[in-house]
Amino acid sequence: MMQTPRARKEQPVPSATVPRLSGYLRQLQEIQARGTATISSRLLAEAVGTNPAQIRKDLSYFGEFGIRGVGYEVDRLINELKKCLGLDHTWDTIIVGAGKLGTALARYRGFQKQGFNLVAMFDASRAVIGKNRGAGPVLSTQELGKYLKRHHVDIAIVTTPAAVAQTIIDRVVAAGVPSILNFAPIRAHAKKPAIVRQVDLSTELMTLSFYLKKHSSH
Amino acid sequence: MMQTPRARKEQPVPSATVPRLSGYLRQLQEIQARGTATISSRLLAEAVGTNPAQIRKDLSYFGEFGIRGVGYEVDRLINELKKCLGLDHTWDTIIVGAGKLGTALARYRGFQKQGFNLVAMFDASRAVIGKNRGAGPVLSTQELGKYLKRHHVDIAIVTTPAAVAQTIIDRVVAAGVPSILNFAPIRAHAKKPAIVRQVDLSTELMTLSFYLKKHSSH
Repeated sequence: MMQTPRARKEQPVPSATVPRLSGYLRQLQEIQARGTATISSRLLAEAVGTNPAQIRKDLSYFGEFGIRGVGYEVDRLINELKKCLGLDHTWDTIIVGAGKLGTALARYRGFQKQGFNLVAMFDASRAVIGKNRGAGPVLSTQELGKYLKRHHVDIAIVTTPAAVAQTIIDRVVAAGVPSILNFAPIRAHAKKPAIVRQVDLSTELMTLSFYLKKHSSH
Repeated sequence: MMQTPRARKEQPVPSATVPRLSGYLRQLQEIQARGTATISSRLLAEAVGTNPAQIRKDLSYFGEFGIRGVGYEVDRLINELKKCLGLDHTWDTIIVGAGKLGTALARYRGFQKQGFNLVAMFDASRAVIGKNRGAGPVLSTQELGKYLKRHHVDIAIVTTPAAVAQTIIDRVVAAGVPSILNFAPIRAHAKKPAIVRQVDLSTELMTLSFYLKKHSSH
């Protein structure tokens, strides 16, 4: 098998490229599951709904693994994408807010598979504390500070009500947790350098509503 | 009270502005709940974490409601934003996929409040069909076509496994549903003109992982 592994020095991957890499990885894992060993940039582009030039550009950031005239080796490309996306690590994750959404996330199957290790869940409600919502007994949010002193945590997922979300984020970030995935409908921010990502159901619903209104008034 | 309601002819609101309008609305509703009647663009800007010029520009798209030297009338601005975002309508909504995530969404309190009227839920699993997951007995996805012939539906929320999500979206769009909010980790598309929005947990987690890896390798 002829190979041209012209791997480049590591270049910084632009932030706009990262979500696309995760899309490529997902498609490649499906392609791998069907037993396909190599794939051309044209077919991969079709699978993810983009063009081959975009694929080649995006994949060039972390080395070139294409074989001229054959395409990409699926196994190898998956490994490289996983490494690039940090999915060769395990990230210790907590969920603060063990309501319906928190529980759904705790039981989300993709979670463990992608290397997110759910180590604890917290809630302020007496009715929930002590119950198993997917990660053993739910702890009281009052114990959050104590817990974070004793345990290493990489990611805090916040699914509390809006009114307390920023306070929780402040406490978690102050305790040294480097990244937050916030589902509460607030514009969350961190007082110390930390990575804060937002999943905003409320904005998505309002955006749909806006376009529906435009659509239905034609 | 001096008023300068120099309302303009309706201009199209740029798509990038829409998510910001939904953020303004959320903040204004909190401000209203605290009993505040007027707010300056400066204070509103602080509350949402932007600058006053951005606020004035965004709000100018659908008329001007500021009172010079006093600010915006909170009640009136809320009403205008709701109208602009289509939140003065009620949107009939179905959820396809009544698993953990679908159930969490069905029981999400913000839902009804924002005018999203959940009319039915569907699932393919016999263990789930007939159970109440927040919107009365879950129907079989086999009945989806028949249901959509008899009932008007504005929005389909898709929380099925990835493998069947596109097929479900195709069926729903073919039956005339004009908008989709997809939670399945696929790059969903519509074969007919329809509004498709994506909430992508998997990509969010991978993006966090990417930045964590960068962060921890310094």
